[in-house]
Amino acid sequence: MRKVGIIGMGNVGSAVAHALIQEGAFDEYVLIDKREEKVRAEALDFEDAKANQNESYQITVNDYSALDDADVVISAIGKIELHYNNVKRDRFIELPFTAEQTKEVAAKLKATKFSGTLVVITNPCDAIAALYQKETGYPKEKVIATGTLLDTARMKRAVGAAFGVTPKSVSGYNLGEHGNSQFSAWSTVRVLEQPIKEIARERGVDLADIEEDSIRGGYTVFSGKKCTTYGIATAAVRLTKAVVSDSHEELVVSHYQDAYGTYLSTPAVVGRAGIVYHVPMALPKDEADKLQASADSIKTQFEKYAD
Amino acid sequence: MRKVGIIGMGNVGSAVAHALIQEGAFDEYVLIDKREEKVRAEALDFEDAKANQNESYQITVNDYSALDDADVVISAIGKIELHYNNVKRDRFIELPFTAEQTKEVAAKLKATKFSGTLVVITNPCDAIAALYQKETGYPKEKVIATGTLLDTARMKRAVGAAFGVTPKSVSGYNLGEHGNSQFSAWSTVRVLEQPIKEIARERGVDLADIEEDSIRGGYTVFSGKKCTTYGIATAAVRLTKAVVSDSHEELVVSHYQDAYGTYLSTPAVVGRAGIVYHVPMALPKDEADKLQASADSIKTQFEKYAD
Amino acid sequence: MRKVGIIGMGNVGSAVAHALIQEGAFDEYVLIDKREEKVRAEALDFEDAKANQNESYQITVNDYSALDDADVVISAIGKIELHYNNVKRDRFIELPFTAEQTKEVAAKLKATKFSGTLVVITNPCDAIAALYQKETGYPKEKVIATGTLLDTARMKRAVGAAFGVTPKSVSGYNLGEHGNSQFSAWSTVRVLEQPIKEIARERGVDLADIEEDSIRGGYTVFSGKKCTTYGIATAAVRLTKAVVSDSHEELVVSHYQDAYGTYLSTPAVVGRAGIVYHVPMALPKDEADKLQASADSIKTQFEKYAD
Amino acid sequence: MRKVGIIGMGNVGSAVAHALIQEGAFDEYVLIDKREEKVRAEALDFEDAKANQNESYQITVNDYSALDDADVVISAIGKIELHYNNVKRDRFIELPFTAEQTKEVAAKLKATKFSGTLVVITNPCDAIAALYQKETGYPKEKVIATGTLLDTARMKRAVGAAFGVTPKSVSGYNLGEHGNSQFSAWSTVRVLEQPIKEIARERGVDLADIEEDSIRGGYTVFSGKKCTTYGIATAAVRLTKAVVSDSHEELVVSHYQDAYGTYLSTPAVVGRAGIVYHVPMALPKDEADKLQASADSIKTQFEKYAD
Repeated sequence: MRKVGIIGMGNVGSAVAHALIQEGAFDEYVLIDKREEKVRAEALDFEDAKANQNESYQITVNDYSALDDADVVISAIGKIELHYNNVKRDRFIELPFTAEQTKEVAAKLKATKFSGTLVVITNPCDAIAALYQKETGYPKEKVIATGTLLDTARMKRAVGAAFGVTPKSVSGYNLGEHGNSQFSAWSTVRVLEQPIKEIARERGVDLADIEEDSIRGGYTVFSGKKCTTYGIATAAVRLTKAVVSDSHEELVVSHYQDAYGTYLSTPAVVGRAGIVYHVPMALPKDEADKLQASADSIKTQFEKYAD
Repeated sequence: MRKVGIIGMGNVGSAVAHALIQEGAFDEYVLIDKREEKVRAEALDFEDAKANQNESYQITVNDYSALDDADVVISAIGKIELHYNNVKRDRFIELPFTAEQTKEVAAKLKATKFSGTLVVITNPCDAIAALYQKETGYPKEKVIATGTLLDTARMKRAVGAAFGVTPKSVSGYNLGEHGNSQFSAWSTVRVLEQPIKEIARERGVDLADIEEDSIRGGYTVFSGKKCTTYGIATAAVRLTKAVVSDSHEELVVSHYQDAYGTYLSTPAVVGRAGIVYHVPMALPKDEADKLQASADSIKTQFEKYAD
Repeated sequence: MRKVGIIGMGNVGSAVAHALIQEGAFDEYVLIDKREEKVRAEALDFEDAKANQNESYQITVNDYSALDDADVVISAIGKIELHYNNVKRDRFIELPFTAEQTKEVAAKLKATKFSGTLVVITNPCDAIAALYQKETGYPKEKVIATGTLLDTARMKRAVGAAFGVTPKSVSGYNLGEHGNSQFSAWSTVRVLEQPIKEIARERGVDLADIEEDSIRGGYTVFSGKKCTTYGIATAAVRLTKAVVSDSHEELVVSHYQDAYGTYLSTPAVVGRAGIVYHVPMALPKDEADKLQASADSIKTQFEKYAD
Repeated sequence: MRKVGIIGMGNVGSAVAHALIQEGAFDEYVLIDKREEKVRAEALDFEDAKANQNESYQITVNDYSALDDADVVISAIGKIELHYNNVKRDRFIELPFTAEQTKEVAAKLKATKFSGTLVVITNPCDAIAALYQKETGYPKEKVIATGTLLDTARMKRAVGAAFGVTPKSVSGYNLGEHGNSQFSAWSTVRVLEQPIKEIARERGVDLADIEEDSIRGGYTVFSGKKCTTYGIATAAVRLTKAVVSDSHEELVVSHYQDAYGTYLSTPAVVGRAGIVYHVPMALPKDEADKLQASADSIKTQFEKYAD
């Protein structure tokens, strides 16, 4: 029996639930949101779909104790309105609000017997994952943020478009903060059997443009629809399924890294144990420096807002 | 190659696209909306999901000519804001807006070579289906509205909850207008191997409550989340897939009925030809009268608003 | 985490595994067969598919202790060769072989901590389910045979073909033994909003032919491919998924019935508890008599072969 | 509307059909086999599954004209018995039989209006693809053999097992003949962010063993179950879906290569046009030599058997 909890049924949490339900991924959904009327409406809307749906599932609303035997809990709390006048496009602008919420949720989670993996979408997700881990006392490998799994998908989308292949046929990563200090680690990116720097040079493709697109792409979506949903939800779904199926898939996700003293996205092998193991990378110096700078940035911002 | 067009990328159109994409139901999506920035943001958000998704698909935006070889076009135009002060909970309140839009869309559709089936979600869907059919000149059997397929799912949800079975194990229908004049045709409803009237009497279940719930349930969802999405999207998805796979499934959908001179929901066998055939019903007199009254109501309202 | 065990990896067990794996239905598969080389080859063949598959899963081979935390165990033991000269088309011909195997398996199951639901495909499945229940001491509601769920699908296939609808739009059941004494309970069958007896009379459809087809259809498949796989596997998959998802779906499956003192197929509501409840039927006398005769036949044959 | 033809309904063709049907991948299946009773039994077995299945689809049997509007035709003809005493494990042993069959099928295909992509599983698949292309006169890019897509999956399975990751997290290829002259192109293989040669050296993993396993793995499966089904079927399904969805996925498949004058497996971008483009590789000399030798081997064997 597969069971998932989703905490925060805003645009993203609802899209995650919809995606999982649509493919019959779980048997039990525990939907939690402080806006009682909202979360009950979402649940009822799903119940209204059941007669026309292939797969069966059960929904529980606003009951933390139902998380006791969940495989995964997903934190999708957020307040998109905080971005409406966010000219610096800074995901840390959400921290004062989400940190507060995170502490509340963590306290409630801690009161349950939940022993699965906590998947953090809530932004700024590197910092929030750290906060969840600290507040719950869960093992570090069992608290994971989606991190640059989404930004990497954006990079692959842009690379794929430039070279005429599906994003799935592009390998490599955006690393670091799920925020402005991340970067496309071009040394890791390959497409059409070549390192991207070579083929980009041959074909006159501007990698700086693609990197910019991958980092800022979310704001294009946001400016057009006033939220972002499918990209982030799909990243969370992929991570969640990797955990439940114990897939041992290598994914670029935000996990605690001793070397940097912070949560940070680099590749890791993911399974039912959460982070099964961290995958070491031999980055060239310029990229290693950028990764260090991104780690520093997360810590600095965290401290600034945490004050 | 499966191809679908979705016209109107608001809450419902987007939920339909998300559901279809999530299960890899189509190879090509043509997304159309007059709000150019909005529809491009939705498409980009889907593109940002591709690297983390199982299935592949292509998206085209705002190009009617791309509908030439579509299997199905779904009209999901609407203006949910029109319901914000809709105390009478009247779906016809949308008609002046949606009728105008429908005429525009119909003219553009007519200019394409589209020869598949048009699935109408746009409310008031019985009237709008009639309008689409008239404006496009498409064969009547190729213009279908989701009608009471959603309301029937709500009825089955409520019946299922009352008797401890999944909604899929309840048979029978809500008939008539996808609106206030519809009714639960209890003579058609069976659960646990009994006509519902008998088992409801035995167990003291109040069918009037269930009927009320099935007809007004959408407003509970609406009041909690300011829109309804999954229930209606899932009904549209089921109908769309029945058409593309030529399933010959019996579904309660709104189709043109000579006997009533209007679009109206009663069961029909659905396939690639659209409505493959209408399924005649031998309703008891009270239900036959209600169906006639509902047909009359659609025509009256249509005329009133059409003036 | 969803986990299933499949005992017996012949044609049917393999088809069940393939179907479940293909849709990502479970996270862990425990495949068991006394033919060590055979079951290892099947597992390796699945492992060879993984790089090209969407979903992830783990396979364990021939380890009963891995069933401790399984949701469902499926018994698919059989010996199709026993039917090669089976002129009477009698599923009981397998009993001496399968009863022996069942006792062995039951003893091994009993030594595990398995507490889920046992789904029995092994023929003659009504008798074998009884034997499993007796030998393991499992609660009666947690041992279920697929019974006439397959024969009912055959009846619906034939009815659907006769009336131009998909089998899913036919309601009603074949009842009794998954064998020669079963019957199509026409009083329960409805299609196109009519009791089948009425519409068959109107359209000149011979129900006796359809019943014969539904009961003997398996032999047509068998004579052409020397086994039957998809029909039975799909029935088992549906039942298994209903259990895991706690769907509370009404399914016609073989369950222990006090009134008859035997396992016998009539409708039941199925969920994680196995048989959640038996659905009483008010059959007309001729069908009630046939059901009694079928129950008697199972008991008689069981005793005869059990001697 | 998605339509696929499968020619040859033996173990592999049936497994391909089962996999596609199980996930609702196509709307129409055209199943073709000279063994009339066999193919009708397979079709009937699928029809017996419909009432218990989620997705709908139509099956046509032994009608080449139904292939006129198919998206893909899959050739799965074979005679597994030819391998029963095949001590040299040589896939070319099937050539005299399959070449004969291929000519017959090609003539019948040519008489249809089929204009989609032909996917060849029939062994020796490199030679048979060439023969199909010659006999039908189809554009070279529209005749593709599954080639080393399966052997690559076996290599990834073995690499994944050695390094504790899912096969999907291994990149790189087996190249050349789908037969004994193929090789693991280790220069292309990466796992855990390292070239495999480096990480294998570090961890003491023997790549020669893995290569042997990937090339001979099929015989382990074959010796245990007297056929191989899921691995090859899944490779064919993946290729088929890439074509229909126009995915532009990079896949290692056998396609005609001017540089070698033969069909041969190296990476290509696949879509609705078949081979959308060939992906050039800069192989180190030893691997380039092996690829040349494999190409030569295919030609030599083809000529030998073709005499």
